[in-house]
Amino acid sequence: MASRSKVLLVGSGGVGTMVAYALEYSGKAEVTSVLRSDYDKVVKDGFTIDSCDYGHIECFRTTNIAKSVSDACENHGPFEYVVLVTKCVPDVTNMVEIIAPAVTEESTVVLIQNGIGIETGFKQKFPGHTILSGVSMIGSANRGAQISHEVSDFVKIGVFYNPTLPKEKQDAVCKKFIDIYDNDKIECTFDEDVKFSRWRKLVYNSCINPVSALVDLDVGRIELFGGDGGLIEQLMNEILAIAKSDGVDLPEDVIEFMIRSDDPNYYKPSMQVDVEKGNYLEIEVIIGNPLRIAKKNGVSTPALSVIYELLKLVQCRIKEQKGLIVVPKERPVPTSA
Amino acid sequence: MASRSKVLLVGSGGVGTMVAYALEYSGKAEVTSVLRSDYDKVVKDGFTIDSCDYGHIECFRTTNIAKSVSDACENHGPFEYVVLVTKCVPDVTNMVEIIAPAVTEESTVVLIQNGIGIETGFKQKFPGHTILSGVSMIGSANRGAQISHEVSDFVKIGVFYNPTLPKEKQDAVCKKFIDIYDNDKIECTFDEDVKFSRWRKLVYNSCINPVSALVDLDVGRIELFGGDGGLIEQLMNEILAIAKSDGVDLPEDVIEFMIRSDDPNYYKPSMQVDVEKGNYLEIEVIIGNPLRIAKKNGVSTPALSVIYELLKLVQCRIKEQKGLIVVPKERPVPTSA
Repeated sequence: MASRSKVLLVGSGGVGTMVAYALEYSGKAEVTSVLRSDYDKVVKDGFTIDSCDYGHIECFRTTNIAKSVSDACENHGPFEYVVLVTKCVPDVTNMVEIIAPAVTEESTVVLIQNGIGIETGFKQKFPGHTILSGVSMIGSANRGAQISHEVSDFVKIGVFYNPTLPKEKQDAVCKKFIDIYDNDKIECTFDEDVKFSRWRKLVYNSCINPVSALVDLDVGRIELFGGDGGLIEQLMNEILAIAKSDGVDLPEDVIEFMIRSDDPNYYKPSMQVDVEKGNYLEIEVIIGNPLRIAKKNGVSTPALSVIYELLKLVQCRIKEQKGLIVVPKERPVPTSA
Repeated sequence: MASRSKVLLVGSGGVGTMVAYALEYSGKAEVTSVLRSDYDKVVKDGFTIDSCDYGHIECFRTTNIAKSVSDACENHGPFEYVVLVTKCVPDVTNMVEIIAPAVTEESTVVLIQNGIGIETGFKQKFPGHTILSGVSMIGSANRGAQISHEVSDFVKIGVFYNPTLPKEKQDAVCKKFIDIYDNDKIECTFDEDVKFSRWRKLVYNSCINPVSALVDLDVGRIELFGGDGGLIEQLMNEILAIAKSDGVDLPEDVIEFMIRSDDPNYYKPSMQVDVEKGNYLEIEVIIGNPLRIAKKNGVSTPALSVIYELLKLVQCRIKEQKGLIVVPKERPVPTSA
C-alpha cells in the first residue's frame, strides 16, 4: 500500500467533517483536523454522523486531531494538502495568516469555500504554490459534533491556475486530490473551469441566500409569498451581467435551475441559518467581491448594491453581538459649526 | 360653558392615548375611545401615563370607553369627529368599513396616521364629508396601558380638501378641531399644505424606518455602521424625486434634518419596534403608495423598490405568524411539463 497523503483540514463543520470523512474513507489520506469548540467532545466521543451517502456512523475521528494549526504542524506535519472548509469571512478572519505555518514548500492549498476572489490573498502569500478550488454541493450541518448530512456530496475540484507554474503539474496535484477524495458513495470530479463554477454557484448564493437572511424566510416561503419572481430574478440577472463582464457566459436557464434547486423543500439557506445563530455572514466573497468587479467593469447593480448595504449593517450587528465592535455609550453626533 | 364636542377615538395606543388626553385636557371634548385588548384593564385602572408634556398621570380614562365602534355609536354617539390614530395597514385591516357606522351626516373624519394616499378610501366612502389630516411628531409607546411619552407632542392638522365642499367650511371644522386639541402644554397647528407635510415626513418614514426594520438596528447604530451616508440618502433622494413628480418640492436640506432628527439618541424607529413585536408594518401607505406614484410618473426608484420587495416578504412572515396566511404543509412546486 502506498503511503497515505498527509492532509490538514481546517474547518470541521457540517461540510468539513464530510470532506474529512471522504478523505479518510478512501484509505489514501491521513487527515489531521484542527478543532476548536468541539475539540474535547470529539477527542472523547468522536463525531456522530447521519449521512445520506454513508449511513449512520458513530464515533468518527480523523487520524489526528489538533487544537490549532501550530499544534498540527508540530505533531503531524508536514502536509501535502492544506484544506480549508471554513466559512469565508475575510472582514473578520484572515485565513491566509492562520494557515501560513502549515504551508511548506510541498504544500498545495485547497479552498472548499464559497465566493469569488477568495484565492487572491493565498496567491499573494504563497506565490510558488498550487491552489485548488472546491465547489461543493452538500447539505450538511454540524450541531455540537452531531453531523446531519442530507444532500449527496457532489464536489468539483479544479485549479486556480498559477501562470508561473506548469499547468500539467498543477493539474496533476489536483487530480491526485480528486483521487483521494472520490469514492463509490459520492462524486468528486475535475473542474475544468473554476471561474465558471464559482460564478454559477453565486447565482444561488448571492441572491437567494441574502434575501432569506434579510427577511428570515426559507426558500419555499419566499416563493409562496411572491419573492422569487421579482426580486430574486432581478438579483440573479445582475449576477449574470457581472459574470459576463468578467468573461463568464452563464446560460439563461441557470436562473430557473437555481430557483427550483431546493424543490420540494422548505429549505433554509445557510445565510438564514447564520443570522439565526448569530454567525458572521460571508458577504464580502459572495456579494462584495462581485460588486467590486461590477464597479470596475461598469455593470449596473441597483438591487445587489442595496442588498449589500443592508447585509453590511447586519454583519455589523453580529460583530457588535460578538464584541468585535463596541458602540460608545453616548451616541457620537456631529457638532454644529 | 359651551357643550363639549363628541369625539370618537379609534386606536388608543401610544400616540392615540396622548391625542385622547389632549382632547379631554382642554375640556372642550367628550371623548369615547374604542378599546380592544386593553379594555378590561383600562376600565378597571385606566392608563398610567408618563409624559414629557403633562408629567405623571395615574388612572387616565376618556369620558366614555367602548368595546367596539358599534358599541360606541349605540351608547355615546353621534360623533362630531371620528378620529383614527391606528397604524395604517390597509392590506390587513379596512378601517373605512370599521368606522363607517360612526360616520353620520355631521361627522368629520380625522386621520392622524402616516403615509401617502391614506385618505383615498375615506373620500370614496364618505363623499360629502370633510376629512382632516393629522401629521404627528410624538415619541410615545403603549405597553399594556402604560404610556411612555418622550417627545413633546407637535401635531399639524389640515384638510384633505374635498372639491365638492366649500373650502371655508372645511377650514372651519379643521380649526375647531385644532382649538379643541391645542393647549398650553403642546403644539397643535393648522397645516396649510397637507400634501407637503406628508411627503416631508416620508423622507424619514420611508427610508429610516424600513432600513432599521430590515437590519434590526437603531438609528444611532445605522449611522455608526455606515448606513446613513449611502443607502439612507439614496432612499431619501428617491422619495424627494417622487414627491417632486407629485408636485411637492421638498428642500434638499430636509435630508440632513431627518438624518439628524433623533440626535443624540440610539432611537429605535417604530417599524423596528413593530418587527420586534411581530406587529404588521405600514408598508403600503409608507412605501407601496409612493412607489405606485413613482411608477405612474416614470420616476426611477431602484433602491426603494428593493426595500419594498423585502418588506412585503417580512409582512407575509408576520401574517403567517398571526395566522392570516397558512402555508401548505407540503411545498407546492411547479410540475414539469
